[in-house]
Amino acid sequence: MNAAYNDLSSTFTRLYRFRHLNSIVGWDHSTMMPKNGNDARAAALAELGVLMHNMITEPALKSKLDAADQENLKPLERANLREMKRAWQSANLLPAKLVEDMSLASSKCEHAWREQRPANDWKGLAENLKDVVRLAREQAKLLAAEKGTTRYDALLDMYEPGMTTAKIQAIFADVKTWLPDLIAKARALQANDALVKPVGPFAAEKQKALGLAVMKHLQFDFDGGRLDVSAHPFCGGVPEDVRITTRYREDDFAQSLMGIIHETGHARYEQNLPRELVDQPVGLARSMGIHESQSLSFEMQLARSKPFLKLIAPLVREHLGDQPAFSADNLGKLYSRVAPGYIRVDADEACYPAHVILRFEIESALVNGEIEVDDIPALWNEKMKAYLGIDTKGNFKDGPMQDVHWPLGLLGYFPSYTLGAMYAAQYFATIRRLHPDLDQKIEAGNLAPIFDWLKDNIWSKASELSTDELVARATGEALNPKHFRVHLETRYLA
Amino acid sequence: MNAAYNDLSSTFTRLYRFRHLNSIVGWDHSTMMPKNGNDARAAALAELGVLMHNMITEPALKSKLDAADQENLKPLERANLREMKRAWQSANLLPAKLVEDMSLASSKCEHAWREQRPANDWKGLAENLKDVVRLAREQAKLLAAEKGTTRYDALLDMYEPGMTTAKIQAIFADVKTWLPDLIAKARALQANDALVKPVGPFAAEKQKALGLAVMKHLQFDFDGGRLDVSAHPFCGGVPEDVRITTRYREDDFAQSLMGIIHETGHARYEQNLPRELVDQPVGLARSMGIHESQSLSFEMQLARSKPFLKLIAPLVREHLGDQPAFSADNLGKLYSRVAPGYIRVDADEACYPAHVILRFEIESALVNGEIEVDDIPALWNEKMKAYLGIDTKGNFKDGPMQDVHWPLGLLGYFPSYTLGAMYAAQYFATIRRLHPDLDQKIEAGNLAPIFDWLKDNIWSKASELSTDELVARATGEALNPKHFRVHLETRYLA
Repeated sequence: MNAAYNDLSSTFTRLYRFRHLNSIVGWDHSTMMPKNGNDARAAALAELGVLMHNMITEPALKSKLDAADQENLKPLERANLREMKRAWQSANLLPAKLVEDMSLASSKCEHAWREQRPANDWKGLAENLKDVVRLAREQAKLLAAEKGTTRYDALLDMYEPGMTTAKIQAIFADVKTWLPDLIAKARALQANDALVKPVGPFAAEKQKALGLAVMKHLQFDFDGGRLDVSAHPFCGGVPEDVRITTRYREDDFAQSLMGIIHETGHARYEQNLPRELVDQPVGLARSMGIHESQSLSFEMQLARSKPFLKLIAPLVREHLGDQPAFSADNLGKLYSRVAPGYIRVDADEACYPAHVILRFEIESALVNGEIEVDDIPALWNEKMKAYLGIDTKGNFKDGPMQDVHWPLGLLGYFPSYTLGAMYAAQYFATIRRLHPDLDQKIEAGNLAPIFDWLKDNIWSKASELSTDELVARATGEALNPKHFRVHLETRYLA
Repeated sequence: MNAAYNDLSSTFTRLYRFRHLNSIVGWDHSTMMPKNGNDARAAALAELGVLMHNMITEPALKSKLDAADQENLKPLERANLREMKRAWQSANLLPAKLVEDMSLASSKCEHAWREQRPANDWKGLAENLKDVVRLAREQAKLLAAEKGTTRYDALLDMYEPGMTTAKIQAIFADVKTWLPDLIAKARALQANDALVKPVGPFAAEKQKALGLAVMKHLQFDFDGGRLDVSAHPFCGGVPEDVRITTRYREDDFAQSLMGIIHETGHARYEQNLPRELVDQPVGLARSMGIHESQSLSFEMQLARSKPFLKLIAPLVREHLGDQPAFSADNLGKLYSRVAPGYIRVDADEACYPAHVILRFEIESALVNGEIEVDDIPALWNEKMKAYLGIDTKGNFKDGPMQDVHWPLGLLGYFPSYTLGAMYAAQYFATIRRLHPDLDQKIEAGNLAPIFDWLKDNIWSKASELSTDELVARATGEALNPKHFRVHLETRYLA
C-alpha cells in the first residue's frame, strides 16, 4: 500500500537525520570552533553535503515520485509529496560538484570574513566573495533555465516559494513612496522627546541572564534548546534542539535583548512545528518570509510595544540595576527611536525596510550579472545616501561587510525580512480584531492570545499549505502590505 | 600506479570526514545538548553509524585490500594498509543492524545515566545496561569467532591491539602481590604527615581560569581546541580541533585541576599526530593504552611530581587566593596522598590500579557470560572491600554507576588505564636516564625534555609501528611493569 510514497518517506527521514548533523555541526562552527579547526570542518561538511546531494539526486527517486503521485494518499501525504517534489527539483538541477564547490567556497569565505570584517578588509573579502558569487550565479542559471524564471527569481524561490522579483519590486516601489516621508515625520515628532540614555557598562553575563529571563517569559523551551554567542546572531539546530545565538556589547544592552527576542520568535516556530511530521518535508517551516514573520511578530509587533516593555521593565531593572533609563516609558522611547544607522540588524523598525531594499537591489543585480562584486561598495554608498542619508565610503565593515549572508552564499534571502515584517503586521491586525483588549492582556503578562493564535494558525501548519493559502486562511486575505504601513503610522506618527 | 591503494586511501579520507562529524556531534551530546534533544540526536548518530559501517563493509573493499597488498608500497603506506585491514576486519565481522542497535542502546543508556546516577537509580540503569551488555556480547561473540580468541579478548583487541586477558592477568596478578602492601606502607608513612586542607569554596570560573593557565604551560594549542564541562571528563573532537572537558566541584579544586592536566595529555597526543597523515588509519593514535600513557605521563609522572607542583604553586595562589594549603610542599602532600576512596577518577596513583583490576575482573566475566548485570553490585562491593577495604553496599552512584564506559558500551577499555600508567612510568625512566637533572629542569619550567621526547618517540609515530615496537624503540624494551613499581616505591615509600 502506497509503496512508493512510503519508500520516499524513509529516504526523507534519512535526509532529515543527516541534516541534523549538518545543523549541529554548523552551529558549532559558528559558536564554538577554534580557528584552526576550519579546514577539516569545511572538508567534513562538504563531504556531508555531497552525500545528501547524492541521496536526493539518486535516479530512482524520479520514478518513485511519479509512482507516488498515482497512489491513494491522504491530503497531508499529498502535501508532503508536493514538498518532496520541491526538494527533489531544486536539488536535481544542481550537479554534485557545484554543491561541493559552493560548500567549500562559502565556508572559506565566511570563516575569513570573521577576521576580515573587524579589519575592514574589503579587498580580502571580495577575493573570496567573487568565488561565492560566481558559484551562486551558476546555481541561479541552472535553476532559472528549468523554472523558466530570471536568475534571481530562481534563488528567491528557494527561500520564498512563489515569490518573484516583479512582486517584490511592486511592493518595494510602493514602500519607497511613503517610507522616507514617514521616517522624516517620525524623527521630527521625536526630536523634542527627551530620551534618557542607559548608562553602561552592562556585563555580558548580566545581559545573558536578562535574555534568559525574557526567553522564559516568551515560553522558549530550555529542555529543547540553548542560547549562545556568535559573531552574527542566528537560530539554528533542529526542531527538537533549537540553538539561538546573540552577541553582547558591554556598552549597549538594548540590541542584544531585542536580538534574543527576535531569535526566540524563530525558535518557537521551530519548537512548535508538529512533532509527528518533523522528519518529513511537509513538517518544515513554510518559508524564510514566514520564519521572519515569527521573529518579527516577537520583536517588532510584541516586544517593542509599550505594554510589553511595561511588562519587562522590572526584569531589566532586576538584572541591569535600577536607573532612570529603565522606566517603562523610557524603554518605550528607546525601542521606538527612529534613527538611520549603518547596521541592518541594529536598525529601528522604520529604517529597516530601507536596508532590505538596498540589499535586494544590489544582490538581484549581482546574481543577474548586471554588476560585479567590485561594484558593491560604490552602489552601497550611493543607496545608503539616497535611502537613509548616510555616507559609508571606506567604512566597509559597517557597510557591505556587515552581514554574513553573502559570504555564506545566501543570495535571495534578504527580501524575506521585509516580507516577514509585513506578514507579522497582518497577523497582529487579525489578533487585535479578535482581542480588542490585546494591549491590556500583554501588559498583564497574558501572552496566550498571541502564542495560541500563532500556534494554531502558523506553527502547527508547517508546510501543509502554500504561503499564500497559509496567510489567507490565518488572516482572511493574501499578503497585504497595507497593514505594515498602518502599523508604522500607528506606532510612529500617532 | 598503486590504484587499489590510492582508491582505499580516498575511501578512508571520506570515513575520516564522517568521523569528524561523529566526534563533534558526540562532543556536543555530552557538553551542550539539552535533554529533549536526545531522541533525534540518537537517531542521527545511528544513521551516521550505519553509513560509516556500510562504507567500511562495502564488498569491493576486500578485493582492493588484496590488490593493494601486491602493489609497490613504501613502508609507511604498507603500515597504513595494515591499519586499513585492521579497521576493515573489525567492521566486517559486525552486521549493520548490530552496529545501529548498539549505537541506539548506548546512546539511550548513557543519556538516562546522567539523571539515574545522581538519583542512585541502579535498577533504572540496569534495565538499559542489560541491552548494552547483550549487544556487546553479540559483538564479542562474532569478533571472537573470527579472531580465534575468547570473547573478552576480542573486545580488548579493539582498544589495545595485541593485548590478551592472559597477559593482563599475569601483570595484574603480580600487582596484587605487592600493591596492598605498598598502599598500607604509604598510608603508615603519611599518617603523621600534617596535610593542610585547602579551604573552599572555589568558584568554577576561577578553577577554569587556573586550568586554562596550566594548559598553556603544558602547551595545549588553543587555536586547535577548547576546554568545556561535561558530566564525565573526556578528550574528544578531532586532531585539528581537540575538545577536552572537565567538571568542577566548588568544594574541591584539586580533582578538576588534575583532570584538566590528564585530558591535556590526551589532547597533546592528538594535536601532535602527524598532520599529513591525519586522514589515514596510520595517522591515528596507536591504542587506548598508549593514549592513557600520555594522559598519565602528564598527570601522574609530571604533574603530581614535587618539582612541577613547585612550578605551578604560584599560579594556584594567583587564581584561587593565597592560603597555607597552596605552598608547593603542601600541594605535593595533597597530590600524593594515598587514601582509598569510592571514585576511580578521583583515586590517587597508588589506589588507581585496584579500581582498574576490579573493573577488569567484572567486565571480563560479564562479557564472557560468567555473570549478569544484576550480579554487578554484589561483586563490586566484595572486590572494593577486598582491594581497598571500602563498603559500597547500596551506594550505586559511587559504585558501579560512577563510570560512563559501560553505559556507552565500552567494555574492554578499563585495562588501558593501568597499562597506560605502566607505559608512562617506563617513558619517564627513559627520559630520566637521558636527563639526570630532569627535576631541576621541570622546576625551572623547562618541560622541553619531556615534550620533545614524547613528540619524537610517541606522538609523531601515530600508528606506524605496533604497540610493542613503538614502546621498544622508544625505551629499549617491551612493556616492563617493573618501572611502574619502582616509580610508586620511589614516590611513596622513599
